[in-house]
Amino acid sequence: MKPNTTFLYKADPVRGRAWAEVFRRRAPELDFRVWPDIGDPARVRFLAAWEPPGDIATRFPNLKLLLSSGAGVDQIDFAALPPDLPVVRMVEPGIIRGMVEYVTHAVLDLHRDMPAYRRQQQAAEWQPLQVKPANERRVGVLGLGSLGQAVLAHLLPFGFDCAGWSRSRHAIDGVSCHAGADELGDFLRRTDILVCLLPLTDATRGLLNASLFARLPAGAALVHVGRGPQLVADDLIAALDAGRLSEAVLDVTAPEPLPCEHRLWRHPRISITPHIASMTQPATAAEVVLENLRRFEAGEPMVGLVDRTRGY
Amino acid sequence: MKPNTTFLYKADPVRGRAWAEVFRRRAPELDFRVWPDIGDPARVRFLAAWEPPGDIATRFPNLKLLLSSGAGVDQIDFAALPPDLPVVRMVEPGIIRGMVEYVTHAVLDLHRDMPAYRRQQQAAEWQPLQVKPANERRVGVLGLGSLGQAVLAHLLPFGFDCAGWSRSRHAIDGVSCHAGADELGDFLRRTDILVCLLPLTDATRGLLNASLFARLPAGAALVHVGRGPQLVADDLIAALDAGRLSEAVLDVTAPEPLPCEHRLWRHPRISITPHIASMTQPATAAEVVLENLRRFEAGEPMVGLVDRTRGY
Repeated sequence: MKPNTTFLYKADPVRGRAWAEVFRRRAPELDFRVWPDIGDPARVRFLAAWEPPGDIATRFPNLKLLLSSGAGVDQIDFAALPPDLPVVRMVEPGIIRGMVEYVTHAVLDLHRDMPAYRRQQQAAEWQPLQVKPANERRVGVLGLGSLGQAVLAHLLPFGFDCAGWSRSRHAIDGVSCHAGADELGDFLRRTDILVCLLPLTDATRGLLNASLFARLPAGAALVHVGRGPQLVADDLIAALDAGRLSEAVLDVTAPEPLPCEHRLWRHPRISITPHIASMTQPATAAEVVLENLRRFEAGEPMVGLVDRTRGY
Repeated sequence: MKPNTTFLYKADPVRGRAWAEVFRRRAPELDFRVWPDIGDPARVRFLAAWEPPGDIATRFPNLKLLLSSGAGVDQIDFAALPPDLPVVRMVEPGIIRGMVEYVTHAVLDLHRDMPAYRRQQQAAEWQPLQVKPANERRVGVLGLGSLGQAVLAHLLPFGFDCAGWSRSRHAIDGVSCHAGADELGDFLRRTDILVCLLPLTDATRGLLNASLFARLPAGAALVHVGRGPQLVADDLIAALDAGRLSEAVLDVTAPEPLPCEHRLWRHPRISITPHIASMTQPATAAEVVLENLRRFEAGEPMVGLVDRTRGY
């Protein structure tokens, strides 16, 4: 690493302390600083941030690399960045493990009618419901990146009938893979439990709307772990009220935090968690960042490098 | 199969029709009858039942084999059976798959604080809670038969720190196995989420009581999928109220159905389902029974043969 290089961290300060510990041990030559203690701006070559400062292009003249502290980059205003600045998303095992746990739980919750049993408990009602075998339950995952693939790998051992959809073509053992707008309809028509793991881009904003819900089988369920603005909340509520959808599990909303008066909170067929499906684990995240710095200096491909033309 | 042999079925009649279909196709030489249409009692050599008739010893003089239609045999009064009559439990893939789904769901539900998030949703409160990595979550399974082993095989890929306990010694890759009364204390001391999958016997009746709860780490949680009479409900409620236990998921109760006025229904830290964790799937169950009949006639060891001295 070049001497007098500052690595600036601008995200949750509690996690920042865990990063500092890893950097002190593994990269003592780096001047690790936590925002707003930026030191000499000319020395800042690396910036890890959830939301970069608005004046990033002028403030840090020698910035070489921007690292998102989270899995997504939709919170970053690309227009405010120097056009050639490389940006990397966070791809780290802690995020993947959390997402796998959350989605497996949500799919099993829906598959085994747990929302109905919770309503029955409220009424002190003992009423067994018919169980469908997992191989007759069609799960469909929107988004086949590292998260989608890990989720599918954990759903397959339960015997679910699994499919996936993504923009570009993928091949995954045991999973029926669909690609592109042309194959979205076939994917939706065969999906009883839809899991949204897509990144937020102009193409996915508002994607989960009445028109998409109408293409799912009647009574399908939704697990939304992408980004809040992908879902049209009014359309979801209408689809649930009409019985077109049976249940929804939402870990993301628009806005976040969801205001306490919002009607999503109170719908009997919606389960809400406060964007906790998956969080970066500071220790493993810092290791992944250090590995990306090494690759950057060596001119090797970085993990999670963002293609600005597609937005993720 | 001997000519003029009746296979008598005495359990849920809807499932009985599915068995009849399998038997007609696979064992047309057998006279398959559904209770109370018993035909000539002297021809009844095989009886599949949930609760055998009280006069079984005198009514069917040529009975050779009793098959439980469910995973347990605690509903059978062994004193009323001819002493040498072999009894087999139901060990079939449908039961195992259902149990694996239910327990994986319950463990993830507790691991990821879903009961707390459901309470927060009631209050329209958006409050992320600290997530523990799975490798710091110690899951302990009481009972290492075919169900316990299958459950553990599905929990291990999530990275949980898994242990098991059973009466007799077992060895399972990746699982810390404890055996016998002497090692129960060590097992309980290291268990954050306790899963009870034991059969109901004189030794396990009332086992889940205040004294056992006191040996778990403070704040441990219970998943009870064994049999209702193993749990002392008053002790569970006291342990939850005192904060000794944090949450409980109960699929079995005493009695069943749980009367609507019972206070288990209304405890805020208890989730109740109506004994639905795992149900025999008629088609696969009938296949397993036919295989056991073949083994019986060939003098080979049957799957699930009950040892009357231990009671399962």
